[in-house]
Amino acid sequence: MTGGPEDRMGGERVYRGRVIHVDLDRVRFPDGSTGELEMVRHPGASAVVPLTTREGTSQPIVTLVRQYRYAAGGYIWEIPAGKLDAGEPPEDCARRELEEETGLRAGRLEALSHIHTTPGFTDEVIHLFVALELAPGRLSHEPNEFIELHERPLEEVMAMVVGGEITDAKTICALALADRWWSEGRR
Amino acid sequence: MTGGPEDRMGGERVYRGRVIHVDLDRVRFPDGSTGELEMVRHPGASAVVPLTTREGTSQPIVTLVRQYRYAAGGYIWEIPAGKLDAGEPPEDCARRELEEETGLRAGRLEALSHIHTTPGFTDEVIHLFVALELAPGRLSHEPNEFIELHERPLEEVMAMVVGGEITDAKTICALALADRWWSEGRR
Repeated sequence: MTGGPEDRMGGERVYRGRVIHVDLDRVRFPDGSTGELEMVRHPGASAVVPLTTREGTSQPIVTLVRQYRYAAGGYIWEIPAGKLDAGEPPEDCARRELEEETGLRAGRLEALSHIHTTPGFTDEVIHLFVALELAPGRLSHEPNEFIELHERPLEEVMAMVVGGEITDAKTICALALADRWWSEGRR
Repeated sequence: MTGGPEDRMGGERVYRGRVIHVDLDRVRFPDGSTGELEMVRHPGASAVVPLTTREGTSQPIVTLVRQYRYAAGGYIWEIPAGKLDAGEPPEDCARRELEEETGLRAGRLEALSHIHTTPGFTDEVIHLFVALELAPGRLSHEPNEFIELHERPLEEVMAMVVGGEITDAKTICALALADRWWSEGRR
């Protein structure tokens, strides 16, 4: 893999925000040419598929959040997720956000993968997990976080993905990976 | 669904870029409270899973692109994709980007879904398609676009998703949907 921080030849911060910053970087491309690229800097995040099974069945149930997203024009379906605090390991962030948003504590967390949300203009990476052996914890929503909780069978949730009812990218990626993980018996 | 443009009470453009702009919007939340949100405005995009079958088999083959992404620190695996031109229908964009990046013309295009790439801070939406009945067309890469083409069986590509080798969110979403679409025989 070529590329990396050594491709950065300089640049300037053109916007310093609360969550994101925007840099205009001078970049050396793989052919040796140079150019300028706009880059939204983001601290990264973790997202979790919380899975339980009902007594007497092996059908997995997902806890989804229905969250207000101004950028998407209203409430959309997601999985619990949130930004990394400074220096926070992705797994700790996943456990913290799961408990804050759903009130559930994960007895076990399994890493699925990580994603680049939209690498054309941001360095944001989201780490994806499955949470299992869930126990009651403490709910604590952040200001301006509007969240409803919904439990649905994984099979039904996958039909919501295929039917276009779930449109959040991290959620689709994590559900598709969790569905394979579950069906391949890695639980 | 509550929410939408009527939630915007005002704001200002804090960065005007080449591809993206950043707005600091004053927003009315679902509980009636108000606050400010940073919002990266993006024109939207289309992305395509190009599928063919080898003579004498029913095993689908995907044309992947391996593309230099400064934000991801080097070359990453993706599907053909690109930004909507002003007023361009997503389907036209999908056909155009497919031909520009891979030199393939789609005889048939099927819509899979659309995704919000990262709705916490951007309004970017990517429209996802499967392209079939592929015929030779004309390759034309944009400046600063560094792309290699690779043909791989869909099954192998899905293993690259599960194994964490493919990390681009739109690519994982589109492949997961295309894999279901194919296996459910909707071709």
